[in-house]
Amino acid sequence: MEKRELLYSGKAKSVYTTDDNDLMVLQFRNDTSAFDGKKMEQLDRKGLVNNKFNAFVMSKLSEAGIPTHFEKLLSDTESLVKRLDMIPLECVVRNVAAGSLVRRLGVEEGIDLVPPTFELFLKNDELGDPMVNEYHARSFGWAEEEHLNKMKELTFKVNEVLKQLFADGGMLLVDYKLEFGLFKGEVVLGDEFSPDGCRLWDAETREKLDKDRFRQGLGNVVESYEEVGRRIGMTF
Amino acid sequence: MEKRELLYSGKAKSVYTTDDNDLMVLQFRNDTSAFDGKKMEQLDRKGLVNNKFNAFVMSKLSEAGIPTHFEKLLSDTESLVKRLDMIPLECVVRNVAAGSLVRRLGVEEGIDLVPPTFELFLKNDELGDPMVNEYHARSFGWAEEEHLNKMKELTFKVNEVLKQLFADGGMLLVDYKLEFGLFKGEVVLGDEFSPDGCRLWDAETREKLDKDRFRQGLGNVVESYEEVGRRIGMTF
Ligand SMILES: Nc1ncnc2c1ncn2[C@@H]1O[C@H](COP(=O)(O)OP(=O)(O)O)[C@@H](O)[C@H]1O
Ligand SMILES: Nc1ncnc2c1ncn2[C@@H]1O[C@H](COP(=O)(O)OP(=O)(O)O)[C@@H](O)[C@H]1O
Ligand SMILES: [Mg+2]
Ligand SMILES: [Mg+2]
Repeated sequence: MEKRELLYSGKAKSVYTTDDNDLMVLQFRNDTSAFDGKKMEQLDRKGLVNNKFNAFVMSKLSEAGIPTHFEKLLSDTESLVKRLDMIPLECVVRNVAAGSLVRRLGVEEGIDLVPPTFELFLKNDELGDPMVNEYHARSFGWAEEEHLNKMKELTFKVNEVLKQLFADGGMLLVDYKLEFGLFKGEVVLGDEFSPDGCRLWDAETREKLDKDRFRQGLGNVVESYEEVGRRIGMTF
Repeated sequence: MEKRELLYSGKAKSVYTTDDNDLMVLQFRNDTSAFDGKKMEQLDRKGLVNNKFNAFVMSKLSEAGIPTHFEKLLSDTESLVKRLDMIPLECVVRNVAAGSLVRRLGVEEGIDLVPPTFELFLKNDELGDPMVNEYHARSFGWAEEEHLNKMKELTFKVNEVLKQLFADGGMLLVDYKLEFGLFKGEVVLGDEFSPDGCRLWDAETREKLDKDRFRQGLGNVVESYEEVGRRIGMTF
C-alpha cells in the first residue's frame, strides 16, 4: 500500500489517497478546534493519542458486529481506512444532558435522558452544523430513508457497546457524535471515535475527561484523553 | 353555555372557561406579534377575520375526517371549542422553503420540498421555540410516541386537504403550524388555522398573503387575510 496525494484536510485530520482506490490514509493531526473552528490550538501528542484511541474503539465496535471503515494502524498518527462516500450528517446520541442540548432546551446539565436522544446535524461549518431531522435529510437528498434507518440502528448499537466499555473503566458516556458513509452501497461507520467527539465524565466525581476540557480551558486535555484510554485497557 | 373566567391570555388569543368543563371560549384579539413577541401591533379587524377564517378551515378539516376542537362561532371574535390538554409542541409542514428553514439551512426561498418536511418546535417563548425532535419529546415527556405518531399523521392529512383548498383559490400553501391537544385521551387539532400561522403565496405572482406581510412590513395585512378568505369561498 502506497500513500499518494492529499485528498482533503479537515479541522483535525488529513485524508490521503492510496494506490488502492478502495482505501485511504487518515492522518490524525495535533490541531484541535472548537466552536465551529473559532477556537484553534495545536495540542502536543493529540494526533497520536486519538489515532490509537480510535483504532482501539473501532476494533471493539467491529468485534460487536458494527461495520467500520477501520483497517489497521499504519504509524503513530496514521490509519488505513476504507474510502467511504460520506453522508454529510452527524449522528448524536445523548445519555445525559450536556453541551448544546442544555443551551437549546434550557435543561440542567447532568440530567439523565431516558430514553437516550438521537439527533442529526448537517455537517456544514458555515451554517454552524444546524440541527436537522430525517425529513430534511430526505427532501434535500442528504441520505436515503433506508440508509438513515441503518445509521440510527448502528448509532444506538454503538451506545450499548461503548456505555459498557466506559462504565467498566469507571466513566459515564454522556454523548457522542458519529459519521457514516457508504462503501459499495453499505452503511459503514467512518471518521473517528475519540474524546474529541464525545463527552466522558468520571462516574464518581463527574470530572470531564473529554474535549470540553479544551472548550472550557480546563487544561490537561491530552493527558485526560490518555487517562481515558488507560482506563479502558489501552497502552500508548 | 355561559362564559366564565379568563384562563389564559396568549399573544393573539384569550381563553375563557365556561359552565361546561369540557368546553372553552377562544377569543381572537387584534394583537399581532412576530419574532417571539419582539414585534407587537394591534391590527384592526384581525380578531374577527382570523376567528371566521379559523371556523371555515376547521369545518373543512372536520368534514375531511380530522378531529378538531372547533364547536361553533359564538360572536365575531369568539368561538366555542373543546377544552384540550395541550401538547407543548408545534407541528410544521413545509411544501416550499421559506422563513426559518431558509435561514437555518442556507437554502433558497421558494424551492419545492419533495417530499414535504415535518418539523417539531417546542412551544416556549423564552427559549425562542427551539426545533426539537421526537426523541426529545419522548425523553422530556412532552408527548407519548403514540400521540406523536397521530400528530404527524394528522398534520400530513391536513396538508392534503388544505393544499387543494388553497390551490382551488389560486394559492400555494407554503407551510403551516398546527398545535394539538388531548381530549378524553384522543389527539385533537387545537389552536387556530389562519394566515397568522401559515404561509400562503399567490400561485402566479408568488405575492405573500400571510403574516410575512406583517413580519416584513409589507402593509395590507388584514386585507390580504380577507382576500385569502374570499378566494377559498368565505364571506366576512
Ligand atoms: N472512511 C472515510 N472515507 C472518506 N472520508 C472520510 C472517512 N472518514 C472520515 N472522512 C472525512 O474526512 C474528514 C476528516 O477530517 P476532519 O478533520 O474530522 O474534518 P472536518 O473538519 O470536515 O470534520 C471529514 O470530512 C470526514 O467526513
Ligand atoms: N382547545 C384548546 N384547549 C386548551 N388550550 C388551547 C386550545 N386551543 C388553543 N389553546 C391554547 O391557547 C393559547 C392560544 O392563545 P395564543 O394567543 O395563540 O397563545 P400563545 O401566545 O401561547 O401562542 C395557546 O397557548 C394554545 O396552545
Ligand atoms: Mg471532523
Ligand atoms: Mg399561539
